[in-house]
Amino acid sequence: MNRGSVFMIDQNRLPFEFRIAECRNHLETCRAIRDMTVRGAGAIGAAAGFAMAQVFLEADRTGDKYGIDNGRRLIENTRPTARDLFYAVEQVYRAGQESVRHALDKAQQIATDNIREAEGIGRHGSTLIRDNMKILTHCNAGWLGFVDWGSALAPVYFSKRNGKEVYVFVDETRPRGQGARLTAWELSHEGIPHAIIPDNAAAYFMSRGEIDLVIVGADRVAANGDVANKIGTLGKALAAREYKIPFYVAAPLSTFDPACASGLDIPIEYRDPDEVLYQTGLKEGGGLERILVCNPGSSALNPAFDVTPAPLISGIITGQGIIPATPEAVMKYLEPSSA
Amino acid sequence: MNRGSVFMIDQNRLPFEFRIAECRNHLETCRAIRDMTVRGAGAIGAAAGFAMAQVFLEADRTGDKYGIDNGRRLIENTRPTARDLFYAVEQVYRAGQESVRHALDKAQQIATDNIREAEGIGRHGSTLIRDNMKILTHCNAGWLGFVDWGSALAPVYFSKRNGKEVYVFVDETRPRGQGARLTAWELSHEGIPHAIIPDNAAAYFMSRGEIDLVIVGADRVAANGDVANKIGTLGKALAAREYKIPFYVAAPLSTFDPACASGLDIPIEYRDPDEVLYQTGLKEGGGLERILVCNPGSSALNPAFDVTPAPLISGIITGQGIIPATPEAVMKYLEPSSA
Repeated sequence: MNRGSVFMIDQNRLPFEFRIAECRNHLETCRAIRDMTVRGAGAIGAAAGFAMAQVFLEADRTGDKYGIDNGRRLIENTRPTARDLFYAVEQVYRAGQESVRHALDKAQQIATDNIREAEGIGRHGSTLIRDNMKILTHCNAGWLGFVDWGSALAPVYFSKRNGKEVYVFVDETRPRGQGARLTAWELSHEGIPHAIIPDNAAAYFMSRGEIDLVIVGADRVAANGDVANKIGTLGKALAAREYKIPFYVAAPLSTFDPACASGLDIPIEYRDPDEVLYQTGLKEGGGLERILVCNPGSSALNPAFDVTPAPLISGIITGQGIIPATPEAVMKYLEPSSA
Repeated sequence: MNRGSVFMIDQNRLPFEFRIAECRNHLETCRAIRDMTVRGAGAIGAAAGFAMAQVFLEADRTGDKYGIDNGRRLIENTRPTARDLFYAVEQVYRAGQESVRHALDKAQQIATDNIREAEGIGRHGSTLIRDNMKILTHCNAGWLGFVDWGSALAPVYFSKRNGKEVYVFVDETRPRGQGARLTAWELSHEGIPHAIIPDNAAAYFMSRGEIDLVIVGADRVAANGDVANKIGTLGKALAAREYKIPFYVAAPLSTFDPACASGLDIPIEYRDPDEVLYQTGLKEGGGLERILVCNPGSSALNPAFDVTPAPLISGIITGQGIIPATPEAVMKYLEPSSA
């Protein structure tokens, strides 16, 4: 954040164009969260925190105190499933009761905490990774989706930097292709060998013994250990259990939601059917083009997340260590930090 | 088949353009099978039978008897997994030992048998469908994939024509989108309400109780009841078992392969990674465009089929009735017909 503006990598244009987007006020930041210019649990949280700080800054300039609660509501309505968003908004809102300075500091602190915790996730998660392992990941929970490092990919990056060879199967992650576009782009930049696979192929490769470990991120962890994550995670978890492949979720503290008793309490975002019906990509001659890839006139349903029940999860990799996906472990994990 | 040419709907251009492709000789028919101008178990079988008949016709014209076995090998190398192809080639090859006329008649008979059997599949399969059921299907096993009616969709069409209301969840079926393009197009033409869903969303809708029944087609049924079908079928079958949703496979006799003891004996076709990396569709201004939808420079893996183990299958819908997916039932089903 700089002179009232929030800056972020425009993830809608990656991997085809690298552009920094500037959001000059909280309305622009809200739009960036909604249209997924910024996406990924941690990055959404950081952006939402800065948006809340922008609200205080703008209210201070205009003297419109009523704008604060309206602004908060607007931010909270951008993405209903992402827990990090509500966490960050709540923290910055509270700090803002003190002063605008406090709000700005808190927003910055959330971003900094995110980096520190992702490092912990990388360190703890890497203990699961042996040399030459083949790892499946879904969606993008790398450094694009966070402030740095990422969640699901942090253990992969940590292992790589410590000399382990890893190979990553990257789920394409339809409809928006975060795996094919963002995770593959990150892995290329990190020099990590990988292959993009259709989401449909994950169970096949598991059934053939080609995948040793699955690590995914999370958008919300319920008090009982159920996890909401990108649509398609549930299917991979069911296949992993069938073929006895360890299935881990990586999540920082800010993704846990003790107010959700179970996954059934997590609201599931439905997004525009056009995300399924159309695809955007690079034309042969260069430049981005949007094309219809479905039968003209047919409609689509586009739930953005699903819930993986705790019993399917081998463990949750946090910044403090790997914990079982059980109510007791989640409770214990949350207690000291929430004090 | 007419004056030595095989005619088929160009399925690569659907649903954006309706065009009939003409294959003037067996080489052109082989290319059409390989590049999926014609696709779907039954339609591949019919095309392969006609291609074999073309080989006999061409050998007769040129007097090149050696061309016959070469031609057969060429046809058999187009698609390794599809059992109907090998079945049709074998039948027409044998008939051709008699005369070219016999080969042509046999190829025509295979196409006719396909229609008759699909009607049986529709009639028997429709006993599974109650009024207002919500049915999930994967890939396209409708009339495009067969000579008429189809396999997995035949029970749906039969139910609809008999006054039952049905709603179909159509798996997009990446990477080639046969669900989003072909099944959705067929259902639109039949006036059947449906929604395209990302393959990733199938388990979600099952977990929420929104799907009553799953019906898919098959590319090869092994002697023990294991079924090879379009990549992604295995994942849906695992999810269906988890949520106690009946999972049926529809397949004509020509899809059964008694020579494969189990699914492990079925060869799995790997196709060009470009099918994953690129997408073709309709530009806003009209006309087809091919765009890159993945990270430039990343590679992809593209297995075209997976194997669903028999225990996950509630039953196999054949032209003669619904049989359990067990070695005994498959054996009994094949005995009278193969006599």
